[in-house]
Amino acid sequence: MAVLVVGSVGLDNVETPTGSRIKTLGGACTYFATAASLYDRISIVGVVGTDFPQEHLDFLQLRNIDLRGLQIVEGKTFFWAGRYGQDLDDAETLDTQLNVFADFHPIVPPDLGQTEYVFLANIDPDLQIEVLQQVPKPRLVALDSMNFWITSKRDSLARAFSMVDVVLLNATEVKMYAQEPNLITAAKKILAEGPKALIIKRGEFGAMLITRGEELSESLFLTPAYPVSRVIDPTGAGDTFAAGFMGYLARSGELTLESLRRAVVHGAVVASFTVEDFSVDRLRTLTLEEIQGRYNHLRYLTHFEPLDDAQCQGFRQLIH
Amino acid sequence: MAVLVVGSVGLDNVETPTGSRIKTLGGACTYFATAASLYDRISIVGVVGTDFPQEHLDFLQLRNIDLRGLQIVEGKTFFWAGRYGQDLDDAETLDTQLNVFADFHPIVPPDLGQTEYVFLANIDPDLQIEVLQQVPKPRLVALDSMNFWITSKRDSLARAFSMVDVVLLNATEVKMYAQEPNLITAAKKILAEGPKALIIKRGEFGAMLITRGEELSESLFLTPAYPVSRVIDPTGAGDTFAAGFMGYLARSGELTLESLRRAVVHGAVVASFTVEDFSVDRLRTLTLEEIQGRYNHLRYLTHFEPLDDAQCQGFRQLIH
Repeated sequence: MAVLVVGSVGLDNVETPTGSRIKTLGGACTYFATAASLYDRISIVGVVGTDFPQEHLDFLQLRNIDLRGLQIVEGKTFFWAGRYGQDLDDAETLDTQLNVFADFHPIVPPDLGQTEYVFLANIDPDLQIEVLQQVPKPRLVALDSMNFWITSKRDSLARAFSMVDVVLLNATEVKMYAQEPNLITAAKKILAEGPKALIIKRGEFGAMLITRGEELSESLFLTPAYPVSRVIDPTGAGDTFAAGFMGYLARSGELTLESLRRAVVHGAVVASFTVEDFSVDRLRTLTLEEIQGRYNHLRYLTHFEPLDDAQCQGFRQLIH
Repeated sequence: MAVLVVGSVGLDNVETPTGSRIKTLGGACTYFATAASLYDRISIVGVVGTDFPQEHLDFLQLRNIDLRGLQIVEGKTFFWAGRYGQDLDDAETLDTQLNVFADFHPIVPPDLGQTEYVFLANIDPDLQIEVLQQVPKPRLVALDSMNFWITSKRDSLARAFSMVDVVLLNATEVKMYAQEPNLITAAKKILAEGPKALIIKRGEFGAMLITRGEELSESLFLTPAYPVSRVIDPTGAGDTFAAGFMGYLARSGELTLESLRRAVVHGAVVASFTVEDFSVDRLRTLTLEEIQGRYNHLRYLTHFEPLDDAQCQGFRQLIH
């Protein structure tokens, strides 16, 4: 089942402790589509300027990514420049030039109006809503956002939350949106606004999935990040997390609590590959077999045995 | 099998967003012993002043904790005052008064020289070494430390590391000691100095166990923290993590990679209870059955299915 993604396609200048790249392929939509195209057919809705290098269009097309929804308009492509410190935490944004993105309105090609899986990458929530108005009945919609929209477009974001199935945010954003310091309590507040599931991305600490409609204690899932010994460039980790998540769900066609858990692990694994090189470079050669390998390895890394009956007996017999 | 612990027994003033306590029972050794006494017989080596309230001694004794190694000397008990902010991260230390702890030298009662499990709580590494000299052949020694000793007594700490089996530190301390920003690489450096295992405590993000002597990728274990929706006072979380870890190992008598993993989860679970109230108050009523309950629940919370063969086949058949 195909996946439609709307978001930024851009060019990035990135500096990290190990190196830098100038005008490299970037943008949430680009990262998502590149990674998700490993799993399924992907359609992009976005915009680039006439300066966008043909080689990048060729690259996306070679991955079978449908570019009919990618507008090419007179002007310059969205540009972002950022720098990561020694700890490779959040990037310091050095420059953002919206360029052709400033006047962008998404246009979904008519035959994609029936797309079953939709990912609204981190853009203006009003644009996310415009996409949903053109894709009336998807099977699953997931949305990513960021602190900027939480503070500047809170009402629109709340409306978008009420229209989607899954929200992806990092822990700081969850607490900021809910205005609540406890993560679990904050998560419940967001779920009360409509989405059926919230995925809290915690970077090097993994991810948390919280689903609505059951006792909260029964609807949590926690996974650590897949450990990476050499992080080169964290850009796009969150977008490709979403790609592993949506890609797995679209490919498997299954929407159960168990498949959501597997999808979250796919997200964590895909993100772990992304950060191993600049831009989408690691994704260029990544295979589903490699993803499977880390998926199964993460199962091993997190496995611990139940306390067996004998141990439980022993425990019960202890008298204080 | 009994456990010997050396460390601070003290009185704490604690402020958190939900309340405060004055001269409450505190100290790493106290937290450890209180929690570990759920699992096994515990002996304390430490010091208090003559001002130490009898009710606290009674409390420890009622838990079958052996206090023969607890020196009571003329003067005031170790005192710490700290304040936690809204995010309940690291405490801001407002005051530390070593008092009788300033001239403390541990004396292990002679019949405890054969103790098989030894926990060196966070104190001056020279004192940790003094204990090991009095307990020549323990089966397992674990050591906790902190940033203060990394900067002020690095050589002594390095020597202590070379004498123990397990080191427990938080992620910042691991990177600081190894002078290396990547956590995994930093961990390898510490293991190269002697310990067989390193446990990296990550607070609300759980813990990582890294063991030496195999391919590193095969000797990692990752567990999230047990999620707690209402954190009251994080003091003692690390010490009681160690208590669950050592307590489980001493009680089970098993020292395998699998039992170390189970022990780490016990640590995470015991810590999750500790933070639910001030001081050792939650531990006063805690039972092994409750620990087992969260242990099994954490198994559920982290469980995800393997990719089944059909899915793997499907993945392999995809052609790009």
